[in-house]
Amino acid sequence: MVTIITERYLKKDILEGIKELGAKGYTTSDVSGDGSRGIRATDFEGRNVKIETIVNKDTGNKILDFIADKYFEDYAVITYVYEVKVVRGDKYF
Amino acid sequence: MVTIITERYLKKDILEGIKELGAKGYTTSDVSGDGSRGIRATDFEGRNVKIETIVNKDTGNKILDFIADKYFEDYAVITYVYEVKVVRGDKYF
Amino acid sequence: MVTIITERYLKKDILEGIKELGAKGYTTSDVSGDGSRGIRATDFEGRNVKIETIVNKDTGNKILDFIADKYFEDYAVITYVYEVKVVRGDKYF
Repeated sequence: MVTIITERYLKKDILEGIKELGAKGYTTSDVSGDGSRGIRATDFEGRNVKIETIVNKDTGNKILDFIADKYFEDYAVITYVYEVKVVRGDKYF
Repeated sequence: MVTIITERYLKKDILEGIKELGAKGYTTSDVSGDGSRGIRATDFEGRNVKIETIVNKDTGNKILDFIADKYFEDYAVITYVYEVKVVRGDKYF
Repeated sequence: MVTIITERYLKKDILEGIKELGAKGYTTSDVSGDGSRGIRATDFEGRNVKIETIVNKDTGNKILDFIADKYFEDYAVITYVYEVKVVRGDKYF
């Protein structure tokens, strides 16, 4: 499971990117957030979007590189990963 | 943690089913989604619901079988599982 | 990842508490829920909030103690934890 939380206006852009990299599906939901961006000390607050996509390890790594390379410098985005077991997952990957 | 993402009109039906199988509680949230259903190549897109329930392993397996048997054939549904540690979980299971 | 699901009017209070304990950011979303509170047999149902915060182990334990000590006795709250890998997490902790 790759989860990306970011500003809503990036949603379309990111969804197109992850689909090109091999994601077969995704879920989005509206969330609110508040957080520091760490060493850059720029804060974000307010209406965000959570994008969740279940992918295999290879596609996941491509997505993580894509997000880090394209967005980490200039946008408020946090990305995290955890392992899930998908029921009849052979249908999806 | 058992997570079920599916079409919203199935929510009531699924919640009744998982409660009968032993789920003591659940959380639902509105999400949007887009995904292929794999080999069947029917796509779903749009307004979906995410159902989350924390259960023990036995109840979890019953729920997974129930969802697979009753919905996988005819509905757009994805189900995945991951382990969580519940604070004072002895109260819930 | 520490997730707290509770009644919405507690949101501000809990967010202030977890920030004081060291959480650098959080995400909130509106959810619905239904669940027993276990041995106390008081039920909650309806509009809830999900608060998610990614923290290191030390801050996580402080947050779990804070929630349990301050809210478990009198409020409907469920708290659970799972491990996530944060991309470029060194920026956040």
